[in-house]
Amino acid sequence: MTDRFDTISFLSDFGLTDEFVGVVHSVIRSIAPQVTVIDITHGIAPHDTRAGGLALARSANYLNPGVVLAVVDPGVGTSRRPVAIEVGDGMSVLVGPDNGLLAPAVGMVGGATRAVELMSSDHRLVSLGSTFDARDIFAPAAAHLCNGVPISDLGPEIDPVTLIPGVLPVSREDHGAFVGEVLWIDRFGNCQINIDPTEIETLGDRLRLSIGDDHRTAVRCDAYDQIAAGRVGLIVDSSGLMSIAVARSSAATELGLREGSELRLSRFDDSEPSGISSPVTLTRNKDR
Amino acid sequence: MTDRFDTISFLSDFGLTDEFVGVVHSVIRSIAPQVTVIDITHGIAPHDTRAGGLALARSANYLNPGVVLAVVDPGVGTSRRPVAIEVGDGMSVLVGPDNGLLAPAVGMVGGATRAVELMSSDHRLVSLGSTFDARDIFAPAAAHLCNGVPISDLGPEIDPVTLIPGVLPVSREDHGAFVGEVLWIDRFGNCQINIDPTEIETLGDRLRLSIGDDHRTAVRCDAYDQIAAGRVGLIVDSSGLMSIAVARSSAATELGLREGSELRLSRFDDSEPSGISSPVTLTRNKDR
Amino acid sequence: MTDRFDTISFLSDFGLTDEFVGVVHSVIRSIAPQVTVIDITHGIAPHDTRAGGLALARSANYLNPGVVLAVVDPGVGTSRRPVAIEVGDGMSVLVGPDNGLLAPAVGMVGGATRAVELMSSDHRLVSLGSTFDARDIFAPAAAHLCNGVPISDLGPEIDPVTLIPGVLPVSREDHGAFVGEVLWIDRFGNCQINIDPTEIETLGDRLRLSIGDDHRTAVRCDAYDQIAAGRVGLIVDSSGLMSIAVARSSAATELGLREGSELRLSRFDDSEPSGISSPVTLTRNKDR
Repeated sequence: MTDRFDTISFLSDFGLTDEFVGVVHSVIRSIAPQVTVIDITHGIAPHDTRAGGLALARSANYLNPGVVLAVVDPGVGTSRRPVAIEVGDGMSVLVGPDNGLLAPAVGMVGGATRAVELMSSDHRLVSLGSTFDARDIFAPAAAHLCNGVPISDLGPEIDPVTLIPGVLPVSREDHGAFVGEVLWIDRFGNCQINIDPTEIETLGDRLRLSIGDDHRTAVRCDAYDQIAAGRVGLIVDSSGLMSIAVARSSAATELGLREGSELRLSRFDDSEPSGISSPVTLTRNKDR
Repeated sequence: MTDRFDTISFLSDFGLTDEFVGVVHSVIRSIAPQVTVIDITHGIAPHDTRAGGLALARSANYLNPGVVLAVVDPGVGTSRRPVAIEVGDGMSVLVGPDNGLLAPAVGMVGGATRAVELMSSDHRLVSLGSTFDARDIFAPAAAHLCNGVPISDLGPEIDPVTLIPGVLPVSREDHGAFVGEVLWIDRFGNCQINIDPTEIETLGDRLRLSIGDDHRTAVRCDAYDQIAAGRVGLIVDSSGLMSIAVARSSAATELGLREGSELRLSRFDDSEPSGISSPVTLTRNKDR
Repeated sequence: MTDRFDTISFLSDFGLTDEFVGVVHSVIRSIAPQVTVIDITHGIAPHDTRAGGLALARSANYLNPGVVLAVVDPGVGTSRRPVAIEVGDGMSVLVGPDNGLLAPAVGMVGGATRAVELMSSDHRLVSLGSTFDARDIFAPAAAHLCNGVPISDLGPEIDPVTLIPGVLPVSREDHGAFVGEVLWIDRFGNCQINIDPTEIETLGDRLRLSIGDDHRTAVRCDAYDQIAAGRVGLIVDSSGLMSIAVARSSAATELGLREGSELRLSRFDDSEPSGISSPVTLTRNKDR
């Protein structure tokens, strides 16, 4: 039995106000003290498996080989399966609930090469209740994998095709325009959308952004600070997707966008006969 | 002088917005670079020694042997004593202010076997002010203990019976019912109460939950997702205590509970002659 | 090529809700797995380079020798320079944007001994967008420096005098009084001001604190808990600067102070002919 992995990348919806994250770190250290745990984030909104799955997918290309421990688990204690999913022929293993959370990241790295249900009582903690599987089931499994315990020792193999898929919204073309939605609003209020930069290349550098009945002019740019005051920018963000941004303020607040909001990008002149647009007047954030 | 401990578990009310936690980590690393620091949580409400003591006690069974550094310290700079408390005949040492914060955890692991007041000027930083003992006194003491400095070198021994006790609320029986209070509301709004699952076994699986003049039916269950919409669940939580929960929402918000709120659990039929109850209509969270 | 540094101290305005910080940790570990990363704080207000610079300066004396990675970068992707600044003849290197953020800390430790612009494509990640230089430029540079890559390999040398200075507000004397402003409000609501304790020694232990037209009596003290209820205290804080505090509550809330608020400290009796003052009645925080 040799050390197999030296890194656990950990994401959850636990927040940092309670001791949940610290206890999971402690459990990992008690089983596999040599392992480094990297906290991806614990700020996923409670129970939001979609947001957790997206954060994991955005991070996937940058995570170190090893174990990914991801827990957003509203069904904890029910019959939903606790699983370990091997990817890249063993380069990494994702550990968490089988509820779609892990699916986008698994897909990004080429799909599952093997999966097991975490049923081995030798690799769980004896638990006082059934509400904290991250502590009692997932963290011990992750730590034992790092110690070189074969994935097959953690429970019966399951067919990867039976894993719950992640449901990610896809954009669609509609008469030359593109209809998508907001995937993610970051701390700065930038709104990542599910429209690929290459899709909208034919629309030019100046586009029409429609949110319900509200129409704006959006200008493609390469840096947030290129966006003029009062204007809306479209920028290829760090995930390689389009983001809607405004200058040194929150686009989400300015435009009333939320995660899941639908929007439409079309040619600027489709509905502007003159091809001329007056500057967009944005409502500025009230000073807080 | 050999390395004595390799882990410091760190809890505070410092939050993560300021640099307090980072500076404490830096001080520890400058004295004992080989040590791993695990952050239990820094989200204890400012000055709330009771909440800090409870979080530490909930974590205690899972912490690694070593030093526990816990700082919720409204009396910093006054005559309250900075202390190190040895437990388990030296398996671990708790370092922090003598204000009741450490007491519940010390009690859980069998009580203090030794204690000292942190008076040694050789094991403190020279400080610019008297407001940050975590940096200047507690972190250095924790780091020196990890380096193998004997606890007796850190200051004069004090009698453990003189340590300030933690004052934890106890539940009481009242004509076959149990009166307790909310110990902790977690990120998900689950309300942990100071009533032991074994105490209420005689009350059956369907109980009456009274909060002031508000009476609800509470149903015992094993998983949050077993709780039907609009119902209140009672679940043995990850600490082995009873928690009040609702389905995928915050029980605290639904029921108007806060930490310290009093409540009463009694037989369901004590006040329901027919033994039949209409479904509880809960006020749903307004969409934010 | 030998290991040069073993610690990266990391500060940003990224918050902990998104995965930004976790991704930066992952990138560092992928290049320099032996390095320990200490998070100073990621709670700097978005784009607030002044607050970030102050937090870094307050921390500077306690950071471990090594690399300081600091990113508050509203101009990411524009022509503002990404830089590495050597201080203490190589004891540490600060890495981040050249926008004034690093300047106060550089000044505190004696100024830059060398600086380069981070232009080497060998020491950057290939990036999908231009919005996350912390991941693509700054973290790789920090990690390579730890691996012993000479600073001169990271890009062309630049003259330290061309680095953007930090603009820190200075206090001024005005007819024997001192006019300053709030530099920082911490989690507890204590208000650090830019007035040195030695400056106001001649004003005595009981001073007049003026905030606009609002005049209060402020009493010098050595511990927060020495401040009587309803009184305002002046205390030498952990940075060695004056802080305004109230007993177990937020001075910022009680006094309506914000970062940048101007205030004035003068002799108590300058405007109180009788030398007697009625107790200040503070508006208590409403119970939440």
